[in-house]
Parts: sequence; structure tokens; C-alpha cells
Amino acid sequence: MAMVCLSDFEAYAKKYLPKIAWDYFAAGADDCTTRDENILAYKRIRFRPRMLRDVSVMDIRTKILGSEISFPVGIAPTGFHQLAWPDGEKSTARAARAMNTCYIASTYSTCTLEEISAAAPGGLRWFQLYIHRNRAASQQLVQRAEALGFQGLVLTADLPYTGKRRDDVRNGFRLPPHMKVKNLEGAFEVCKMSPLDPSVTWNDIYWLRSLTRLPIIIKGILTREDAELAVRHGVQGIIVSNHGGRQLDEGPATIDALVEVVEAVRGRVEVYVDGGIRKGSDVLKALALGAKCVFIGRPALWGLAYKGEEGLQDVLRILQDEFRLSMALAGCASVSEIGQHLVQLSKL
Amino acid sequence: MAMVCLSDFEAYAKKYLPKIAWDYFAAGADDCTTRDENILAYKRIRFRPRMLRDVSVMDIRTKILGSEISFPVGIAPTGFHQLAWPDGEKSTARAARAMNTCYIASTYSTCTLEEISAAAPGGLRWFQLYIHRNRAASQQLVQRAEALGFQGLVLTADLPYTGKRRDDVRNGFRLPPHMKVKNLEGAFEVCKMSPLDPSVTWNDIYWLRSLTRLPIIIKGILTREDAELAVRHGVQGIIVSNHGGRQLDEGPATIDALVEVVEAVRGRVEVYVDGGIRKGSDVLKALALGAKCVFIGRPALWGLAYKGEEGLQDVLRILQDEFRLSMALAGCASVSEIGQHLVQLSKL
Amino acid sequence: MAMVCLSDFEAYAKKYLPKIAWDYFAAGADDCTTRDENILAYKRIRFRPRMLRDVSVMDIRTKILGSEISFPVGIAPTGFHQLAWPDGEKSTARAARAMNTCYIASTYSTCTLEEISAAAPGGLRWFQLYIHRNRAASQQLVQRAEALGFQGLVLTADLPYTGKRRDDVRNGFRLPPHMKVKNLEGAFEVCKMSPLDPSVTWNDIYWLRSLTRLPIIIKGILTREDAELAVRHGVQGIIVSNHGGRQLDEGPATIDALVEVVEAVRGRVEVYVDGGIRKGSDVLKALALGAKCVFIGRPALWGLAYKGEEGLQDVLRILQDEFRLSMALAGCASVSEIGQHLVQLSKL
Amino acid sequence: MAMVCLSDFEAYAKKYLPKIAWDYFAAGADDCTTRDENILAYKRIRFRPRMLRDVSVMDIRTKILGSEISFPVGIAPTGFHQLAWPDGEKSTARAARAMNTCYIASTYSTCTLEEISAAAPGGLRWFQLYIHRNRAASQQLVQRAEALGFQGLVLTADLPYTGKRRDDVRNGFRLPPHMKVKNLEGAFEVCKMSPLDPSVTWNDIYWLRSLTRLPIIIKGILTREDAELAVRHGVQGIIVSNHGGRQLDEGPATIDALVEVVEAVRGRVEVYVDGGIRKGSDVLKALALGAKCVFIGRPALWGLAYKGEEGLQDVLRILQDEFRLSMALAGCASVSEIGQHLVQLSKL
Repeated sequence: MAMVCLSDFEAYAKKYLPKIAWDYFAAGADDCTTRDENILAYKRIRFRPRMLRDVSVMDIRTKILGSEISFPVGIAPTGFHQLAWPDGEKSTARAARAMNTCYIASTYSTCTLEEISAAAPGGLRWFQLYIHRNRAASQQLVQRAEALGFQGLVLTADLPYTGKRRDDVRNGFRLPPHMKVKNLEGAFEVCKMSPLDPSVTWNDIYWLRSLTRLPIIIKGILTREDAELAVRHGVQGIIVSNHGGRQLDEGPATIDALVEVVEAVRGRVEVYVDGGIRKGSDVLKALALGAKCVFIGRPALWGLAYKGEEGLQDVLRILQDEFRLSMALAGCASVSEIGQHLVQLSKL
Repeated sequence: MAMVCLSDFEAYAKKYLPKIAWDYFAAGADDCTTRDENILAYKRIRFRPRMLRDVSVMDIRTKILGSEISFPVGIAPTGFHQLAWPDGEKSTARAARAMNTCYIASTYSTCTLEEISAAAPGGLRWFQLYIHRNRAASQQLVQRAEALGFQGLVLTADLPYTGKRRDDVRNGFRLPPHMKVKNLEGAFEVCKMSPLDPSVTWNDIYWLRSLTRLPIIIKGILTREDAELAVRHGVQGIIVSNHGGRQLDEGPATIDALVEVVEAVRGRVEVYVDGGIRKGSDVLKALALGAKCVFIGRPALWGLAYKGEEGLQDVLRILQDEFRLSMALAGCASVSEIGQHLVQLSKL
Repeated sequence: MAMVCLSDFEAYAKKYLPKIAWDYFAAGADDCTTRDENILAYKRIRFRPRMLRDVSVMDIRTKILGSEISFPVGIAPTGFHQLAWPDGEKSTARAARAMNTCYIASTYSTCTLEEISAAAPGGLRWFQLYIHRNRAASQQLVQRAEALGFQGLVLTADLPYTGKRRDDVRNGFRLPPHMKVKNLEGAFEVCKMSPLDPSVTWNDIYWLRSLTRLPIIIKGILTREDAELAVRHGVQGIIVSNHGGRQLDEGPATIDALVEVVEAVRGRVEVYVDGGIRKGSDVLKALALGAKCVFIGRPALWGLAYKGEEGLQDVLRILQDEFRLSMALAGCASVSEIGQHLVQLSKL
Repeated sequence: MAMVCLSDFEAYAKKYLPKIAWDYFAAGADDCTTRDENILAYKRIRFRPRMLRDVSVMDIRTKILGSEISFPVGIAPTGFHQLAWPDGEKSTARAARAMNTCYIASTYSTCTLEEISAAAPGGLRWFQLYIHRNRAASQQLVQRAEALGFQGLVLTADLPYTGKRRDDVRNGFRLPPHMKVKNLEGAFEVCKMSPLDPSVTWNDIYWLRSLTRLPIIIKGILTREDAELAVRHGVQGIIVSNHGGRQLDEGPATIDALVEVVEAVRGRVEVYVDGGIRKGSDVLKALALGAKCVFIGRPALWGLAYKGEEGLQDVLRILQDEFRLSMALAGCASVSEIGQHLVQLSKL
């Protein structure tokens, strides 16, 4: 079977992963409306491609928070990579470094931050954080990440409680006994998610700021009001995200929310987006609407499930080739030429 | 089979109820367009969830006409509960009391008002009334209900004649011989519905008012014009309802009609809505659009069909948990924080 | 099998008619988009039903061009009724008279006008005319119709050539040898439709006017411009029609076109509509949007196919009952209370 | 099997062509959204047909760049006709001449320009050009075409690189060994498309102009901005095209883009459109929206696959008959009467 596009990896993962793992990765909240809308919303956007521009030399590099990446696609934080591939997050880190892009490691990794760092020294990595009731534990995680050379701190804002994912309830999902949420080992009992602190507010950004010199990126923003609050509270970046449709169902598709967030932010901080990216042209749309970079979640897991590090590189390489080709066919030779004039938002 | 969401109860009921009973409960008028639209219209509404608000202590209680209920979901009036469970409305009354919410008992109950009261003393109950040609019979019903401690009188306004439900016609639907519309026993021959008086007008509200000190809630309002008339005629509450899509097909979905009714009422009386509620997030949407409380019809019957009183409690508990979680994920810690800013009405 | 709604008759006809006859009646032009849109467009219109109006005494009668009919549904002109039932148009005439409504007999009947008249003396009938190249033949038809007591002359305007109905081409449709287009016998060879004159223009209305004192109704108007021309050329009525979607595919649904025609006509002549009527509530929608009466085509043929005269009466009776019930549930006790306030045109 | 409409030819070709050839012709880029949208967009446009206009004498001829054609449908440039029929482009040329219309021969023909010319002397033909890295080769092609009597030069602007057509990648598509891209023989290795020059810009139009006196038509324009640039750079015609949805997926449907291009051009040059034409009424829509002529791609290949020259004539004849009938049913007796008043763009 030739792996031609990301759907091929999805089909492979669905076929070969244990059902309970596939279901966990695929799960959306409630009716999965938002999960699916993330994808459908991209399809409603039409390009306005321009012709006869010199696209013989293509430059698809960009920078996020000052670091150059080979193209504007990074790895979103997702948990439990050992469910997809035995080496887990170590493979993810290696693939990201090989492709010269950014990997956001999740608190809920099945490898420690130290293992991740050791697996791919010098790779560009950010660390994703939930604030726990046990603040000391969170503080320790932040400081371990900084010490290990992680270059950004991603605070997830949309999970005061875990969304209702019906299949996980039906399956009684929990990690197999030989896997651990190693970063938290000893600190809490994990599967119930109860350690997460639902009392977190914007003021906790000041507390985080006091712990670290790393830039803080807030993940999970969907409205102009919260975008404004994020900027005012001094974050360096915003990831427009609905947690892959796994938290509040029937919220907006991220590409739709991106438009209002970008408008509210007015360039004061970088804005990124995740959710629903399945083709290189989706990346082009997100950038046209103001994202500095996109992050992929499930497709990265499909790549891991296919062939570990190598499979994830395949996924990234396909996206890279497709993105470059879309840019060229739309008449853009470099990322700086991408702008809102390239797209037409459907009346639908 | 795990009962995870309301659809599970629906599937159970469809599988285990006698076809004629399932068809009767499921029936919509004509092409069932409005019945189905009630559900689809909720799906067209998108949340605008807010992040990083302290949702560690959740308060989902509300009050309807001064009475506190544990969360803003009550039981809508539906007939013939013995078709779903042998104990019929007695089970319904017990489950509603156990969950500390309001049960609107139907005129077309298969238990008497007295049996219902005795089954769950102290429960919050309203009585649903059709005005019959035989006004004395209606008067007697109202006064029995008041004497029994029912705390509200719900006048159904949308049934001058019964809607055309094709499956009921095909099935020749009628109650099995061992069931009776006990409240009316002796007064009329029931199945033809002929006793209902199609000459009822707004002036009859004054007549009702003269019979009882109970608050009057009018059920079946779908337009701003009728909402204004209801307020002017002195009702205490309005239930936006299309009778579950069982009367005039191709009228508006109730959640769509709610918007215009709430706007017309301008807070002068409480507004409720029924029809199409299938998830806790639907409740949140209805409240965001101005409903004080919602009522569930078919899902209550599915709960009864599953396990009687216990099954209905399961249904209510799931809705309660889902509603609480939706509120938290949207950034609201109490019902008073819910407002129109939480939703975006689709251009669809 | 209980015959509960018009779809039941459709299913019956599809099952029991010879395929070539079913295909001929069902055919739409090209992709059948307009044929199907006629139905779908009704579904996009929502009622705004009013409550608590005295609907105990219902009056559903109306008048068309001064003649009272029992309810605002007549029989549209369709050809070749013997394909549906041996007695052909004689049965149609009897059923229409029995139900006290108007039957528009087609030029392409398989019974003569004389046979039709004799079958149901005293029935309200109009005669549908195509203008032929042989004007003398058309003149003779008009004068026969007038002499036989037909009370209106319906000029079909949308068939300068026959639309392309793929199934008829595939089937090589033609009348079986024992059936004849009796009205034209001897005058032309019929099946090729070549006798129809594609040079007809608005001035030919003056010629028709010179031949008869009957009111002239023009059928096939879909735009405001043509509606204005029709009024200026002195017709007494307009039937908004797209020939059941059998002529130009991808023209407007008739209920959509009705709105602009009614607006243009400003009450100067009566406006009717055909196409897509499948339920009593469709009739109510058409009247709410300004039609004085609707005409049914295919449903009448299904009724004939079911049981001839009796089957067509069943169809009409069902529509009548549904129309009466819809009116009552929308809060109208008589046809004069129906108005545009009853409907909301979807943004779709 | 009767060949009644273009879909019949499509079904035939799908059934009888080798899968690899069918896939190549059918392919769209990525998800094939734009390929399919080309067709769907036509279906969203509604006619506003006018009645009672004399359509007894129909004139469907038109002129493109001064040359009369029998009706406004030409043959779009597509490659590799020998994949569809052994005689390849020679058959295409003969059919176009027999039907008195214009054939745009592709650079990627499997016959030489000389063979094409010899096959159908005197036929109206344009030559489609890609600009290659080897400019001398392009220059030679242009001058051969001019010398052979081709009457227009069509510059394809939307293929700096080849779009990603997944099926071709999966199939490892390449020409069978016995077929050659004869026009380029010796000049380059063809299948990789690498010879195409992605550095081409608007200034290269001036270079082309310097090579030939033929009118230059630019193909692949989708925006008002590029339409304005095309006019300013002195082209004689614009073909609104998205390469049959084979280049950038999720660009606009061509009939949608036509509207904005026609508006921008303001009659200064002729505008044509290809993509999605499947019925004569699609041609009428395109002309109503301002196209001077349409070109068909895949349907021509289906005709070839059916019966070579004869099959393509069948396809053209069906389109011609359907176009004439649509015009008549819309009330137009000649192409000059077609205008925007005939259509209503859907709000969808």
C-alpha cells in the first residue's frame, strides 16, 4: 500500500492499532461534531490562486518565537505515544528533529522529559503543561523542562475537567499496566485526571511567569475576548485549539476561530492553530488567515503507528511537499507572500 | 451495554418496547420534519467557550416560579407512561422527586393524579391540562390538581385537534385494554381525542384564572405575537414547544423559536423550552438563549422503558453530569453566568 | 396496505404501473433537478403557527374565477390518463366533480372532450390548450370546449418544444396502439409533438381572445417580467408552473417563483401554482404565499392508478383533511385568514 | 445501451478504458473537491426562463476571435488521446471539423501537430502551449503551429508544477511504451514534467508575442486581479479554468470564477470557460454569465473512448441539441439574446 496522503496513514492506524488505542486517539467529545467540523471547515474555504509568478525557487521556512523551522508545521502535544509505537515520545522527538521542526511534548507522555531530550539532543521542543492542584509538582515540571533546554511553555487552558468521550467510557480506557505517565510518577494517580486544578484563572499566568524565563504559549483559546485577555496577561503566543474536539463539543472549528483571534490580537503575539490539518493546502489556508504555524495531533500519531520515527517523518514530508506545491500553485514563492488575499471564506 | 448517553436509552427503548408503543412515542406529524429539526437546530448552534475561569465549585441549581430544582431540566408532559413501564407515572413521579426536579403530569396519564401524588409526596409537580368541551370536567381536574399540591397549571395550546401521525394511523394505535386514561375515567371516550375543545381562545385563560390560584404556564407558543398575547393575558410562564413535532409539521424548531419568544417577552415571565434536548450541552444552549429551564419528553420515556424509576434517574443523572461539564468547559461556574455571549447562531 | 398519505399512492403506482407508463409520468427533464426541487422547496418553508384561535368551525372552501370549489386544490392538466386507468379522463372528471373541485382537461387526453363532459355533467372544468401550427385545429378545440361548458381556457406557455426526458428517450416512449389522443384524431400525428407551434408569442393571446368568451389562464409563468406581460395581455389567471420539471431543468421551484409572480401581479389577476404539492400543509404554504388555489398533477395520476375515480377521490380527500388540519393547527378557521404572516421563508 | 446524455459516455468510458487511463483522465488534485465543485456549482444556478417568444427559428452559431463555430462549445486541450482511442488526436481533429467547432490541441498530444493538421485540413484549431525551460523548444512549437495554420495560441498559466493526483501516484502512471509525446520527441524526457518552467511570469507574454502573430489566449485565470493583468499584457482571450480540478484543489469552481473575471474584463477581451460542462444547459448558463464559448475536456475523451471520431461527434451533437433546446425553453432564439437576466445565482 502506497502512503500517498495523510488519509493513508489514518487507514493504516485504524487497521493495525488495538481498538482501545485507536478509539482513544480518535475520540471526540459527545457527538464528535467539533472534531469533524475542524476538518470540514477547511473544506469550506476557497483559494484565490494567482498565476504567472516566479515560483522556481521556493522558500517554505518560517520562524516561531525566533526559532527557524523547515516549514510551518509542528507536532501538537498529545499523550501516550507508546500506545502508537513502543519507543513512544522518543521516536516523536527524533522525527521532529530530523525534519527540523518543533515538537510540543505533553505532560502526559509515556517517556520522561529527560528521555525525550536525550533521544534527540538539540531539537526544538516546547513543553505542554497542565496546572495541577499540587502546584509544587507543576513547578517542578516547568523547571525540569527549562533545565533540559525546552524553549517554550505551552499552558493548556481548555481542560479544567476532561471532556466526555463516549468511546473511552465504553471501553473503560486506561493505560496498559506496562506504560506509565512517567513525568508524574509518584506525584499523582493519573487516569482519573483528578489532579488537574479546575480553579486555574488568568492570574495563574503571573505565577507561571514567576517560575520560568521561557516564553509562555497559551493553548485552547477560541474567542476574541480570551485572545485579548491572553495578550494582556503577557503570553508570547496563542494556540487556537479545541483540543481536537475532545473537550466541549459544538464549539467552533479552529480555522473559523482563528479568524477572530487573529483580528483581536492585531500582531501583538504569534498565533498558531491546531485541529483538522490533513493536507498541505490546509496549512496554506491557516497561514493565509494569520497563523504563524500549525500543529498536527492525530496525523503525527498515525505516522508513529505506521513506522515510528520513520513513519512520522513520512507524514511530515508529505505535508511539506504538499504545502510547497500548494504555495507554488497559489503563486507564492515564500511564506512571506502568503496573505488573506489568497482565500475566500465561504458564505456557508 | 453501557448507558453512556441518551442515545443509548433510545436504542434500548426502540429494541425492547412493543412496536406500537415505540411508534406512538416516536411519532411526529406528517413527514416528521419538525420532530427532527428540533434536534438538528441545536447542532447548528456553536458555543463560544471561555477559558481560565475558576470552575472548581459548580452550582447548577436554578429556580422555576420560585421553586428550586437541582438543575434546569424537568419532565415534560407526555401521555400513557404505562406503555413504557408497568408502574407508569408513579415511577416518573418518584424519579423526578429523587432527582429534585419538576415533573409535569399529563392529563393523559395512565395513573390518577392522586396515585401520582401518593407515589412521591412532596415532589415538585405541575399539572398539564387540555380544555375539554365539557368545561366542568376540566374545572374538576384543575381543582383536584390544586388540592393535591400540584404547584403549576400547564395549559397546552397547540392541540385543538390531534396532529396526523402516520404510523399511529397505520398501526391503528389505541391503548391496550388494561390501561386507562384514569384521570378522565367516566368523563369521555378518550382515544378519538374528540373531547378536546377546538374553540378555546385567549379569553379562556381568564376562565382558568378564575378557577385556581396556581400559576398558569402556557405550552405550545412559537411566535413573538403569541408570546406577547400570553404575557398580556397574565400567564406566569411560557413553554416554547411544538409538541415534539407531533402537531403542525414544518413549524420552527423550538430552539429557533425560543430566540424570538425570549426577545418578545423581555423578562416579564419565565420562558421554558422543550423538544430536541439530547445532551447536557443542549440544555446549556437553551439557557444561553434565554430559557429558564428545559423539559424533556421522549428521553424520559426511554429512561422509563429501560428500568422504570431507576432508568429515568439514569437519564436525568447523565443530563445533569453533561450539563455541569458543559458549563465548566464553557467557563461558567453557576447558572447565573450563562448568557447569550456563550453561543453563536449559525448563518445556516 | 393503508393509504395514509400521498406517498402511499406513489409507492402503489410505482409498483403496479407498467414501467414505461410510470417512467413517463415520473419523468423530469435532464437531471430532474427542478422536478425534485419543486418538492424540496416546500420543505424549506417554515410555518409560524398561531395558537388559541377558535377553530371549531372550519371553512376551507374558496372560489376560482368566481366558481366555488370545496377546497383550494384542483386537478392539473396531464396527458394520457388511460395509461393509469382504463377509463382514463372520464374517471378523472367524475372524481373531480364528486369532490366539487376543478379539473383542467389536457389537449392530450385519451378521451374526447365530449366523453369527458358526458362522464360528469355539471362538473367545473377548464380546458388546457397548446397552440398548434394548424391554427384551425386549435380554434376548433377551443370552440368545442366552450360549447361543452368548459369554463376556462388554460394556455400552456412553456412547451415550444418538448423537454428532454431521458427515460422516455431510453424507453422509446409512445402510446400503446389501443390508446389515442382522441381530441386531435385525424388532425395530426401526435407522438413527435411536432404539431406544436414554437413561434407563438404574447400576441397570440389576442387571437385566442378573439375566439372565445372564456377566461384565459396562462400556465408556465416563472418570472415577474412574464407575469407583468401576462396581466398586460389581458389574461384572467396565471398558473405558476414549470411543467412538473419536465421542460427546462434547473429553473426555479414553483413555490419559489410564486413569490415573485404574486408580487408582480399585485392582485390584478388570480395566481395559481402547481408542482411539488404532496401534503395538505403544502397547500397552506402556497396560499400563504399568495396562490388562490393549487393544482396537482402526478398525485392525481397515482390516485387513478390505485383505483380510478375512487382512488383519485381518496387522494383528494386526504389532501382535504390534511389541509383542514394544517389550517386549524396554524390558527386559521377559514381560507380568508391565511396570509403571509403564517410562513417564514428559510434563508436556505 | 442508448447514449442519451453525457453521463452515458462517462459510464461507458469508465467501464471499458484500462483503469490506469480512466484514472488519469478522471483524476483531480488531492481530495478532488474542485473537480467535483466544477459540476456542483452549475447545479446551484437557477434559470429564469421567459415564455412566449418566437423560437421557431433557432440560431446557435457564434464567433470566437472572429471565426464562426456551429455552437459555443469547443474542445479543451487534454493530453494523450491515444489512451482513449488508437487514432488519438487525429480523431479529435476530424470530429471537431465535422461539427464545425474549435479544437485546442495540447502540447502533450500523442500525435504531432503535423499529423493533426493533415487529419482534418481546414479545421479551426488553436494550439496549447506550456513554456519550457528550453525556450528554443517552445519557440519552435509555436512557430510550427503557426505555420500549420493553427489560429490561436493558448498559454496554460496554472501549471508551474503538476498538481498532486493521488491515483496517478498510486498507479505509477506513465504512457505505455508504444505511445509518445510526439511534439516534444527528442527535446525532453516527458513524464516527470520537469521541463516545464516554473519561473514564467507575465513578462513572458511579451516574449510569446514577439514569436508569433497568432492571438494569445491565456488559460487558467481564476481571479479578477489576474484577469486585469492578462488584459494589460495584451492577450486576446482568457479561458477561466482550474485545469479540471487537477492543479490546486479547493480553488473556486470555474463557473463561479467566471463571474468575477467577466466583471473585471469589461468586454475588453473574449472570456471562455472550461470545467464541469455536462449538459447543454450548462453551456447556456456559462454564456448567460458572460462566456463567449465553453470548452469540454473529459466529455470529449469519453466520446473518443466510445467510438473515436464518431463518438466525439455524438457527444458534441448531444450537447448541441441540448443547448439549442435549453435556449428555446428559456426563450432565446439566438445566442445574442442570451444574457445575465436568464439566471439567478443561488444564495448557496
